[in-house]
Amino acid sequence: MPEASSKAEYIVGVDLGGTKILAGVFKTPQECIGIAKLSTKPQRGVEAVIERVARCVQDAVDEADLSLKQVAGVGVGAPGAVNSDSGSVIFAPNMEGWKDVPLKKQLEKHLGIPVFVENDCNIAALGVHVTELKSKPRNLVGIFVGTGIGGGIIINGDLYSGFNHTAGEIGHMVLDVSGPKCGCGNKGCFEALASRTAIFQQIKAGIKDGEQTILTEMLGNDLADLRSGDLRKAIRRGDKFVEKIVEGAAEYIGIGIANLVNILGPEVVVVGGGVIEALEDEMMSVIVETAQDYAMPGTMKDVEIIASKLGDSAGITGGAVLARRATK
Amino acid sequence: MPEASSKAEYIVGVDLGGTKILAGVFKTPQECIGIAKLSTKPQRGVEAVIERVARCVQDAVDEADLSLKQVAGVGVGAPGAVNSDSGSVIFAPNMEGWKDVPLKKQLEKHLGIPVFVENDCNIAALGVHVTELKSKPRNLVGIFVGTGIGGGIIINGDLYSGFNHTAGEIGHMVLDVSGPKCGCGNKGCFEALASRTAIFQQIKAGIKDGEQTILTEMLGNDLADLRSGDLRKAIRRGDKFVEKIVEGAAEYIGIGIANLVNILGPEVVVVGGGVIEALEDEMMSVIVETAQDYAMPGTMKDVEIIASKLGDSAGITGGAVLARRATK
Repeated sequence: MPEASSKAEYIVGVDLGGTKILAGVFKTPQECIGIAKLSTKPQRGVEAVIERVARCVQDAVDEADLSLKQVAGVGVGAPGAVNSDSGSVIFAPNMEGWKDVPLKKQLEKHLGIPVFVENDCNIAALGVHVTELKSKPRNLVGIFVGTGIGGGIIINGDLYSGFNHTAGEIGHMVLDVSGPKCGCGNKGCFEALASRTAIFQQIKAGIKDGEQTILTEMLGNDLADLRSGDLRKAIRRGDKFVEKIVEGAAEYIGIGIANLVNILGPEVVVVGGGVIEALEDEMMSVIVETAQDYAMPGTMKDVEIIASKLGDSAGITGGAVLARRATK
Repeated sequence: MPEASSKAEYIVGVDLGGTKILAGVFKTPQECIGIAKLSTKPQRGVEAVIERVARCVQDAVDEADLSLKQVAGVGVGAPGAVNSDSGSVIFAPNMEGWKDVPLKKQLEKHLGIPVFVENDCNIAALGVHVTELKSKPRNLVGIFVGTGIGGGIIINGDLYSGFNHTAGEIGHMVLDVSGPKCGCGNKGCFEALASRTAIFQQIKAGIKDGEQTILTEMLGNDLADLRSGDLRKAIRRGDKFVEKIVEGAAEYIGIGIANLVNILGPEVVVVGGGVIEALEDEMMSVIVETAQDYAMPGTMKDVEIIASKLGDSAGITGGAVLARRATK
């Protein structure tokens, strides 16, 4: 493993997603002083993506007016099952060809500084736990709602990843066995009911069935470039059709949380991700009420359900926390 | 806390259920040398039940030709949320009046020896983990299918009970949001789909709808005294109606396991309880196949799904393990 220079005091956190790569340079766990973003382009192959991650790290460091020599370590969140001991991505369902990829080793070759790798949602949960909640809750579940739904679990103060490094795959928890088909082949998975993808599909299906919505005025009949933020705008302009669909997704998130509270008994449940960031005001009260309705009596006592304030930065923040811990 | 006599080398494990109390005297973790059983009679009130537990312990000790002085400790599994530090039952949904009951303290007053209390399914999982699996798996989920469905979780080698001492309430994980009504008020909970209660209800509803079954020949039209073992007999005599319902329940158990594997990433999943004990041959292959179908790729690699051989003894065995650890 490469050693960092003794002058190195900065840390880089990387959020490697199926669509984009985000890198942030951190002076302290809270203070991000430079950010860079690249599209992932997974279709170009594993090697090309790894080079893009390295480039994104370098861009962020440059953005912060630093050099790589001043960086003590890089922490990467990757979208799939990760062996955090070896730093390999075991598999990443949304990135073709990603099977047993020695990401840590390859990135260290490119960058010449220590690299640490974890699952992206685990890292986001770690970021929220350490920087937003000051590591106070002993047990925490993080739920991140975006294109899909993923989770990260903190147990007894530490990240918990289970036997196959796959714990927290909450997006494929079945909530409605006769529900809509999921990308994984099953029916009624959490993410087939409440992810951005699921919400957009319901809206498009409704329009086909003749429902009226402001969204078609805003974006045209094909809803090109529809984003979560557009849903917020539509709801605030009184669009009952969009409101109903978003509330339905919030109810499923509440049911998913109730299941997780019944199973795991966490002290805090944190929800985050792009959908929550855009629609927090519209969704949180429904999420909390539904979770309380569905959880067993006694399980929800003093349990907090909160929306993360970190938004899109949860991944890079958590990556930096991981690398800072590992290089200390 | 009372101290045990230095000659005390035996341990008593108690399984306190809503219907019956079972107590067993253990010479070693594997060797049970005396058993006693009493009905619980929860309608007589909390005090009366505690006296019956004490009597059941004394009966078991007498059955083993021992005296209480030779017992180092008693471990009790109680059906509800238990604060294992204080030994209090926080609440027990199936036993009226059981709210903040200092079970440990009261039993110690009756028996004069140290008593330790845990949730019944946690204790059963502990019993299976230690005596049947020799404490080998680091992470384990135990699923116990009887009148209801309960779970116990071992994480990093230890019992995990979460923030409110309620972790493992897997029976109220929603699997089918539009499914049959559950005793808890929600719809489509795991135990409303796959418990003995759910199976019996489906059979009775089918008979009402004119389905033909050997069970009515065996037990009369009202199916008085129907037991899980009768289902096994009916299936072995070629009863397709009963077979289909039991297979349906097994499928739901498989889906429940897939959810738990996705969330918790255990190394071993153990299923037990009266329904599994009676119908292991009829259910296990369907359970395992369905779980593999529904779990995310990679999560199930090398994960074992096994039926416990402890049967009805899991509770008393686990109770003895708990007390033996605590008195050492």
